[in-house]
Amino acid sequence: MTTRIWTAALAVIGDEILSGRTQDKNVAQIASWLNVQGIRLAEVRIVPDRTDAIVEAVNALRARNDYLFTTGGIGPTHDDITVDAIAEALGVDVVFHPKAVAVLERYYETRGGFTEARKRMARVPKGADLIENRMSGAPGIRFGNVFIMAGVPHITAGMLDALTGTLEGGLPVLSKTIGCWVGESEVAELLRAVEKSHAGVAIGSYPFFRDGRTGANFVVRATDAELLERCIVDLTREIEATGRTVVAGGI
Amino acid sequence: MTTRIWTAALAVIGDEILSGRTQDKNVAQIASWLNVQGIRLAEVRIVPDRTDAIVEAVNALRARNDYLFTTGGIGPTHDDITVDAIAEALGVDVVFHPKAVAVLERYYETRGGFTEARKRMARVPKGADLIENRMSGAPGIRFGNVFIMAGVPHITAGMLDALTGTLEGGLPVLSKTIGCWVGESEVAELLRAVEKSHAGVAIGSYPFFRDGRTGANFVVRATDAELLERCIVDLTREIEATGRTVVAGGI
Repeated sequence: MTTRIWTAALAVIGDEILSGRTQDKNVAQIASWLNVQGIRLAEVRIVPDRTDAIVEAVNALRARNDYLFTTGGIGPTHDDITVDAIAEALGVDVVFHPKAVAVLERYYETRGGFTEARKRMARVPKGADLIENRMSGAPGIRFGNVFIMAGVPHITAGMLDALTGTLEGGLPVLSKTIGCWVGESEVAELLRAVEKSHAGVAIGSYPFFRDGRTGANFVVRATDAELLERCIVDLTREIEATGRTVVAGGI
Repeated sequence: MTTRIWTAALAVIGDEILSGRTQDKNVAQIASWLNVQGIRLAEVRIVPDRTDAIVEAVNALRARNDYLFTTGGIGPTHDDITVDAIAEALGVDVVFHPKAVAVLERYYETRGGFTEARKRMARVPKGADLIENRMSGAPGIRFGNVFIMAGVPHITAGMLDALTGTLEGGLPVLSKTIGCWVGESEVAELLRAVEKSHAGVAIGSYPFFRDGRTGANFVVRATDAELLERCIVDLTREIEATGRTVVAGGI
């Protein structure tokens, strides 16, 4: 059975990631969430808070993936230029979204008022819909296949939660891991052979050094659960045939 | 004084990052290291273990930046295709590097021998130099302005250490941070005005939610230390003029 593979790209927008000040958490979070939706994260670009860089990334990525997510740059301050840049990429105007205005007006009623700066967060590319923000005031934005999310990871998490089950996807990629106290180079040929003899699986090899010892985890990925299981059984048997012990679930 | 800005790009190569299995640490680590070398990390792409994706990213990024770094995919297993893909992008053959062969032969002498799989790690794009690996056997690779590094962060750290001071750069970007228990939207106009009145600085605003309270850190960046200091003093004064307390160094 072959099925269509649905892909998404992610554009992480923010000088704070490129300067090394902030450790990104959204790539891993969005990747894991997409996988459950049956969508594969195909590529990521991290770009600075600069209109031309955002426009280039958005147009390249949305054209060749089913979905594009962006994170960052939708707050109230001068360095938040994501909405304007994406509207430019899409070739549409920026307008106030009536529902976003209403949501933010209510949110800030007891929090110092709906000031000019805060009104910025109600601006969207013309024709966009909102993505519910369950954690704070400003909503995310959807325009066609482009999803504009917050930069703060727990706010993004809430927005992802609001989107769960609403995107069309294919079969989720399933994975199983086994681990072994072995240098990956000692089983490299074996891994290659097992992958080759199971069309449709991908085996990743992830070495580590712990407590002064060398080990590796082997992650088998496939959309077909039976195929995945068969490959794990075969890989385990092949490694154990070399006299080593395999740890199910990984080390 | 205007000076040339030196830029680098980073291509993170690995299905394990795109699947969400592994949290990338190399973006922040390389960004911080580059900054000390007077080089700005201008853009990052995260691509899968697929030749066409690696070739496209490498050629796009190396052409428009002074330096290109890559991480991941230089181990001994079948999913380690970085060297072959980069050689293809560069239009050169893959050859065994005599010094890499010697280094690895010695390294594996007491570790089970220099097997065929391990020999893969001595392969480089023809004409490349090695980057010392102080943590384990396989060296990094330099070809012109392309630097091919390990995926495992502590091995990459050792390679960066070996490169410290060897790359031409400009003035390092200096930064200072102040923090305040304030919603960033309450000082958005003030931030914009202070940035505008100090040509050559960039002010980033990074909100957070902690212990049930809203705060923000403001990071001022500039290559000129005096300008940076003047901007921090002015920004602090402007925020304190609204009756709030500013925390030097950030919260």
